[in-house]
Amino acid sequence: MFSTYEAVEVGATTTHGEYEMTREEILTFAEQYDPQPFHTDEEAAESSLFGGLVASGWHTASATMRLVVDGILEDSGAMGAVGVDELRWPNPVRPGDVLSIDVEILSKEPWREGIGVVRTRIDTVKTDGEVAQSYVGRVLYPMTGE
Amino acid sequence: MFSTYEAVEVGATTTHGEYEMTREEILTFAEQYDPQPFHTDEEAAESSLFGGLVASGWHTASATMRLVVDGILEDSGAMGAVGVDELRWPNPVRPGDVLSIDVEILSKEPWREGIGVVRTRIDTVKTDGEVAQSYVGRVLYPMTGE
Repeated sequence: MFSTYEAVEVGATTTHGEYEMTREEILTFAEQYDPQPFHTDEEAAESSLFGGLVASGWHTASATMRLVVDGILEDSGAMGAVGVDELRWPNPVRPGDVLSIDVEILSKEPWREGIGVVRTRIDTVKTDGEVAQSYVGRVLYPMTGE
Repeated sequence: MFSTYEAVEVGATTTHGEYEMTREEILTFAEQYDPQPFHTDEEAAESSLFGGLVASGWHTASATMRLVVDGILEDSGAMGAVGVDELRWPNPVRPGDVLSIDVEILSKEPWREGIGVVRTRIDTVKTDGEVAQSYVGRVLYPMTGE
């Protein structure tokens, strides 16, 4: 979306999506990366805090990243990310949920020689309007001085 | 590791591992969830800030979660996670890097009726000793009142 640090518009808000979280992908991801019973076992999940199978938060974060890349970073000047603050999972993602992202550019400032850092709020929203995940990311962009 | 909130020992430090980040898995993960050129394309990665192919930070986070589950959460009373603070990727993960985790229980406090929240620092360390990722997680445990 933005080719350089200078092109980044603080205050801009956009929406991108969709990503469907299928039961099969929830199970495949969890078996490899997060094999807790409420992510891998329907029956065990029924008696968990969630009352049914839910996606790993890291799966939601990864699917969100795909929406970020397709919606914002592809063909942009983004050089990588420093990190993420306040990553929260306020509502669980269940099989069949379709995710989209609400993006807000919060701020930008110089980071190192020729590179700036952009703070962006990314909310991951389900079709029913519930926020499944939120965080503030810090992404690097080249500064051209123009 | 801990069956209940009461059993959680604040100040405890442990180390768990290993998880090998193969070139194949780095590419497979990135193609699905984080298709930026420095994660999916060797040649493009050469001229990136990283100087070569590196794993998606979300892949490192997911591999870290597997070490957390195998090392700490399996057969524990953990009920899920509220979120993560200060997620940082100070050094990139490259093909062949082997990850382990250094864990420190920072604090615990009541959350809701019958549930407590435990703050845990998780550092993901490469064989060469460099920290690839760090964060502070918040995990829920059942309170028995005992």
